[in-house]
Amino acid sequence: MNNFIFQNPTKLVFGKGQITLLKDLIPQEKKVMVTYGGGSVKKNGVYNQVKEALKDHDIIEFWGIEPNPTIETLRKAITLGKENKIDFLLAVGGGSVLDGTKLIAAGIPYEGDAWEIVLQGQAKESIPFASVMTLPATGSEMNTGAVISRTETKEKYGFNNQYPEFSILDPETTYSLPAHQIACSLSDIYVHVMEQYMTTTGQSRIMDRWAEGLLQTVIEIAPQIRKNQTDYNLMADYMLVATLALNDMIRMGVSQDWATHMIGHELTALHGLTHGASLAIVLPATLRVLKEQKKDKLLQYGERVFGITEGSEEKRIEEAIEKTEGFFRSLGLNTRLSEEGIGEETINTIAERFNKAGVTYGEKRNVTGNVAKEILRSAL
Amino acid sequence: MNNFIFQNPTKLVFGKGQITLLKDLIPQEKKVMVTYGGGSVKKNGVYNQVKEALKDHDIIEFWGIEPNPTIETLRKAITLGKENKIDFLLAVGGGSVLDGTKLIAAGIPYEGDAWEIVLQGQAKESIPFASVMTLPATGSEMNTGAVISRTETKEKYGFNNQYPEFSILDPETTYSLPAHQIACSLSDIYVHVMEQYMTTTGQSRIMDRWAEGLLQTVIEIAPQIRKNQTDYNLMADYMLVATLALNDMIRMGVSQDWATHMIGHELTALHGLTHGASLAIVLPATLRVLKEQKKDKLLQYGERVFGITEGSEEKRIEEAIEKTEGFFRSLGLNTRLSEEGIGEETINTIAERFNKAGVTYGEKRNVTGNVAKEILRSAL
Repeated sequence: MNNFIFQNPTKLVFGKGQITLLKDLIPQEKKVMVTYGGGSVKKNGVYNQVKEALKDHDIIEFWGIEPNPTIETLRKAITLGKENKIDFLLAVGGGSVLDGTKLIAAGIPYEGDAWEIVLQGQAKESIPFASVMTLPATGSEMNTGAVISRTETKEKYGFNNQYPEFSILDPETTYSLPAHQIACSLSDIYVHVMEQYMTTTGQSRIMDRWAEGLLQTVIEIAPQIRKNQTDYNLMADYMLVATLALNDMIRMGVSQDWATHMIGHELTALHGLTHGASLAIVLPATLRVLKEQKKDKLLQYGERVFGITEGSEEKRIEEAIEKTEGFFRSLGLNTRLSEEGIGEETINTIAERFNKAGVTYGEKRNVTGNVAKEILRSAL
Repeated sequence: MNNFIFQNPTKLVFGKGQITLLKDLIPQEKKVMVTYGGGSVKKNGVYNQVKEALKDHDIIEFWGIEPNPTIETLRKAITLGKENKIDFLLAVGGGSVLDGTKLIAAGIPYEGDAWEIVLQGQAKESIPFASVMTLPATGSEMNTGAVISRTETKEKYGFNNQYPEFSILDPETTYSLPAHQIACSLSDIYVHVMEQYMTTTGQSRIMDRWAEGLLQTVIEIAPQIRKNQTDYNLMADYMLVATLALNDMIRMGVSQDWATHMIGHELTALHGLTHGASLAIVLPATLRVLKEQKKDKLLQYGERVFGITEGSEEKRIEEAIEKTEGFFRSLGLNTRLSEEGIGEETINTIAERFNKAGVTYGEKRNVTGNVAKEILRSAL
């Protein structure tokens, strides 16, 4: 086990009717900007609940943070925040709204252009922020990370701010989510776990068991959600698994991969592919290309998550990868680039970008541009 | 799933050589009291590491916090702390030292007698405290709880303070732990998980999986620790499983039991039985007496933790309980009261105490004095 420091101070406020607690969770004296995406929170009743809970607070609203939030939109929010001397931000919506809000929070006290913060990778200063999370997926509600896109250059990078002060998760807010959005979010959750798990064996028995428990949960709930999206306990598990998949609790003392995410981000940046959809294509291909390196963990994964115990090691590994791809297909997602009309040209662009930037990913830092090319080719 | 709020702000500082970080973790301007138990920290080198790390801090020492820390000892520490205007406490040792320190931290700013805080159940004020944990067991390093004994009346009660500011866990400090202490601590860890897990099914898939993962880990590492107590990764898992068993992470939105602990505390208070040893006797008996109520969870537990899938439900439940008792016996612990020379008289005293206090435990609050009597009789 590697040395580690774990400290996650976010207050997770979970359950039915918890949005009313906003009243006391945000200090009365704060000047609050509430940030939103499109209009879905008006349809599902969340907007009215937030308005009611904050009726005695001094608030302004900012609308229009898009999926894969762009620096172009966020600059407008930062300007508005500076003008109004905002000192608390509340993101209401999905992971994109909160990711964008993490940059607004860092951008308000920052003198330069906020894209610089993204490139620096870590915000040095921030006003406090919190969330009412309505789409379980990114885990942004209980971590420091955010991913921001820049339209003009088709770039998409992650950066870190501090943790949210609190996040309110009411499973009832997920009852009206579109099926495709749920499918993409389940893919995202699954791959978050895999990025922290599918490395080498023997680092931590507990982290392995906890990661496997999350994967088993996602596999178990996915078909049930398709059948009944208004089962409270089911949707509560869905919401909680998203948070626990990426709030540092399954990464204590273990190495991490993240190659799938970094390659996936490129597909989103270049082709506008939904984040979860991009991962469903890249993960199985990554496992195929790196199956020798990840051999022991693939065998453990196959046995513990899918119950694969028979046949040669090679056969069991193949089966584990097939089951993984099968899981994504069961969500109704494509797992091949050709199904999305993506071909060699994009693959070459991504490989060149990685090579030019000199970046390498994966737990062994050996996923170079050329390896990324090999992965993407095997996903054609 | 029940509504819940989770927030655990403790900084967990884990790994080899991390004690040196004390230097920066405790603010330089603090007047620090370092609290210790007996002399084991002098033998395993921890005392010297702490002294060296804090050589530029203004510190005093308090020695002699005993296993099952007593109010009588802690009052002395509180007086010393008040006299010296102590505003930061560092507990160095096992769970008892830290539990005692949690009361010292609440007692220093308190005007009355500190036993009142224990009876109130929740400290209203406290100075900050932290720990260097050298015995994995109680989870006290990352939770708010503490258990304090009163010698003169043979009472033992829990109370809550705030969370530790930080806890440093270096697995190398466990290399020299006595085998019996490790056995008792593994029992304690196992039962902590069971108190939060062995209730009713269907509350949270994730919490179930995470609890089962911890139980599987304890079962897997116990025999290996007996063979080689200086395997770093093994002892790291041992140390981490203790913390994660009782730091709120496996109790999100689920009911809890705690009857075994409350009955066990009485055995410790009346007979001086080591905490972990008392639990090894009480848990199997509790499962036997409450097997109808806990039927579904016992079946799930049997299958997922011990791989019991064959035979009638009744047979599988019996086997799960036998395997549980067998696990404690494999640790070298007794699982029967008679083996400890405890009989009907003590059983009656405990039943009377529960009845007199009007307390009830268990996830259904139906473990009255009479049920406790039945449990203890079945453990004779």
